[in-house]
Amino acid sequence: MTPAALACIEAADLVIGYQTYLKQIAALLQGKESLAYPMTTEVARAQMAVDAARSGRNVVMISGGDPGVFGMAGPVLEVAARSGLDVRIEPGITAATAAASRLGAPLMQDVALISLSDRLTPWSTIMKRIRLAAEADLVLVFYNPSSQGRVRQIGEVRAELLTILPGTTPVGIVRNAFRDDETVLVSDLQHFLDHPVDMATTLIVGNRATAVWNGRMITPRGYRL
Amino acid sequence: MTPAALACIEAADLVIGYQTYLKQIAALLQGKESLAYPMTTEVARAQMAVDAARSGRNVVMISGGDPGVFGMAGPVLEVAARSGLDVRIEPGITAATAAASRLGAPLMQDVALISLSDRLTPWSTIMKRIRLAAEADLVLVFYNPSSQGRVRQIGEVRAELLTILPGTTPVGIVRNAFRDDETVLVSDLQHFLDHPVDMATTLIVGNRATAVWNGRMITPRGYRL
Repeated sequence: MTPAALACIEAADLVIGYQTYLKQIAALLQGKESLAYPMTTEVARAQMAVDAARSGRNVVMISGGDPGVFGMAGPVLEVAARSGLDVRIEPGITAATAAASRLGAPLMQDVALISLSDRLTPWSTIMKRIRLAAEADLVLVFYNPSSQGRVRQIGEVRAELLTILPGTTPVGIVRNAFRDDETVLVSDLQHFLDHPVDMATTLIVGNRATAVWNGRMITPRGYRL
Repeated sequence: MTPAALACIEAADLVIGYQTYLKQIAALLQGKESLAYPMTTEVARAQMAVDAARSGRNVVMISGGDPGVFGMAGPVLEVAARSGLDVRIEPGITAATAAASRLGAPLMQDVALISLSDRLTPWSTIMKRIRLAAEADLVLVFYNPSSQGRVRQIGEVRAELLTILPGTTPVGIVRNAFRDDETVLVSDLQHFLDHPVDMATTLIVGNRATAVWNGRMITPRGYRL
């Protein structure tokens, strides 16, 4: 979190967010009003935040990582668009770069960030994007690679990628980056599904230049060393 | 900058970086040794940092935005790989998400981050990546869109994109995000080159769903409002 985001929370009258994220900042919420929402209530959360702000309150909506990457910035702005409210978005560290920093330097070349959640995007669209991004030799970062109700898709992604990229392509698996129970692992396209992959996991699939040196995943930009 | 990155700089014996970035943190460097390098000396900078660290010093290499996105994490790890040194990478706010937060919420759907610098990547590779990413309907973020010695390329990118995307596709132009001389502008694919675009600029080209509401660029994720 940046000092600017922290200052927003400290100045807020009301903090709204997904319950898991509110728990992570419980220490900041002492003596402050907060409203916890379960998953899949994004629009209700945004509406509540906008209604409270329209009543004159200083409201902060928190979001995981960077609110602008598959986060709450969109729903809040969409709901607020009709209200004329002043909405400020504070960027944060998104999962792609948090995970990359733990793995090494996999994002030194062009990269695609793709969510595997098909709740709001058709699965065929997601698969087409993955195929074209791999053909473009982009490094691939997968958000939301799997969940309790969605386990089949990541296997399909792996099978499709194996028609384009070698099985030895490095795959980084980072779970709960920068939290107490963080796990960081480097595998490859052939074998990465031997390891657990869930909603708290970010996957980074290298491009044709990505290599593993001393256990760290590096996509060289092409400097002459 | 995160508090963790700040703490690293405060603890350092020696801070190394591109001269422009060192100037931006001059207040943190009072009474501390620092080494400023000009542009295009990435490998020399990395080698100096590794040599100093091997001599037992606590060295920080600074980088703009997030060091893991087209930044110094790669060169440092590549040079350090032969040394057995312990290198820690602290993530930061990369230009894509800094710029997005100023524009609205353009990155709510899948996105490609592409550097237009052809110093280390062949121009034909960059153009192929852009073409495939646009066909995949990814939101496009262009780093290093233009420079004093590289002015033709962004026109080629625009011409190519106009064969795939409508001229009305929103294009966000953010220069020096979060600095005193920040400028933020929303244009479209037809007209964005009427505005100045340089190395300090980040461009965000929407996908087919991106729209401008109340002056803010939003790529709706598809929630039912």
